[in-house]
Amino acid sequence: MKLYGYFRSSAAYRVRIALNLKGLAPEATSLHLVKGQQRASDYLALNPQGLVPALVTDEGKVLTQSLAIIDWLEDTHPEPPLLPADPLGRARVRGLALAIACDIHPLNNLRVLKFLTGPLALSEAQKNLWATHWIATGFDALESLLPDHDGWCVGLTPTLADCCLVPQVANAQRIGFDLSPYPRIRRIDAFCQRHAAFAAALPSVQPDFIPS
Amino acid sequence: MKLYGYFRSSAAYRVRIALNLKGLAPEATSLHLVKGQQRASDYLALNPQGLVPALVTDEGKVLTQSLAIIDWLEDTHPEPPLLPADPLGRARVRGLALAIACDIHPLNNLRVLKFLTGPLALSEAQKNLWATHWIATGFDALESLLPDHDGWCVGLTPTLADCCLVPQVANAQRIGFDLSPYPRIRRIDAFCQRHAAFAAALPSVQPDFIPS
Repeated sequence: MKLYGYFRSSAAYRVRIALNLKGLAPEATSLHLVKGQQRASDYLALNPQGLVPALVTDEGKVLTQSLAIIDWLEDTHPEPPLLPADPLGRARVRGLALAIACDIHPLNNLRVLKFLTGPLALSEAQKNLWATHWIATGFDALESLLPDHDGWCVGLTPTLADCCLVPQVANAQRIGFDLSPYPRIRRIDAFCQRHAAFAAALPSVQPDFIPS
Repeated sequence: MKLYGYFRSSAAYRVRIALNLKGLAPEATSLHLVKGQQRASDYLALNPQGLVPALVTDEGKVLTQSLAIIDWLEDTHPEPPLLPADPLGRARVRGLALAIACDIHPLNNLRVLKFLTGPLALSEAQKNLWATHWIATGFDALESLLPDHDGWCVGLTPTLADCCLVPQVANAQRIGFDLSPYPRIRRIDAFCQRHAAFAAALPSVQPDFIPS
């Protein structure tokens, strides 16, 4: 397997956590998103969306979209499971993951922020107002949906929800978002960080890491 | 079962198609999103995200996020399947669905467009530039990923990918987006529209429909 990613991409970070949890270590290729390497013609031939991550299987099949990749890992490498066995539990985990992957992260990724300050000519302050607003909107809801404990988002083992929460918290911290109103999110994030699979997926320990 | 939705919500539209494909007809409750009924305290108690759709099971459990709801339907009402049986096929369907649900729709829904013209004080023309840009970016990739045929997005039966594509096309048409560069998307959309489950899910035939 081969993973195309970037140390700072939240979506690639999710997949790194899932791979680590399942004990898988694909060959890693970094695409420097700020330099636009994801728009190079050879990568676009692989993934026409020009986004990371993409996973290439041992058979040469290309998988895109972080949550689709994690579901494929779940289908092909079921142990340890990252989704509960019962349908309601699965729906709860997926609901939390999608509340991040659909309703927070897409609004604040690099291409979107660049469009706000580029073609739409918004100021840095307006861009920060935007980014802060969508993280706060999403975290307000998550805070009320998550348990108040030192543990995982759902149940007694790490799930897809944790794979999504931790990178989103990292993203929030990177822009200086104030997490003090979110004690549940902070406790779960801190709990996850103590797990080796999460620690090894941190942006700062990736080979392509560049300090801000 | 009870579905909270709104005729014009793309996310609710996806779930309506999936329910119809599976022959399920839950009680429907409409929340007038333009009037802000999704922010009423009784609905926020049910779904703290304040978004539609939400599905309440016969046991009173609340499910949120359209793709999580459709996965729950798949788990609990497996026939007819909306995902292929093989992991690669599943990843392909999920990848297409998420390319819409994560990378197009969240950027153009009502709350986002209102934030652009409200707190960020963008003009209608700038809002339209934004909306058009993200649909075009997403559709450019989808067009190259979809087959050129009168048929479903993937395989010989309707899947989650079709449940996501058709509402996104409707959304694009509503804002006057030019679909002429996307013959594959148009052919698949037209093919889907001829299926009763898709026809019955159209915004214009919902009881809460309000003509623009």
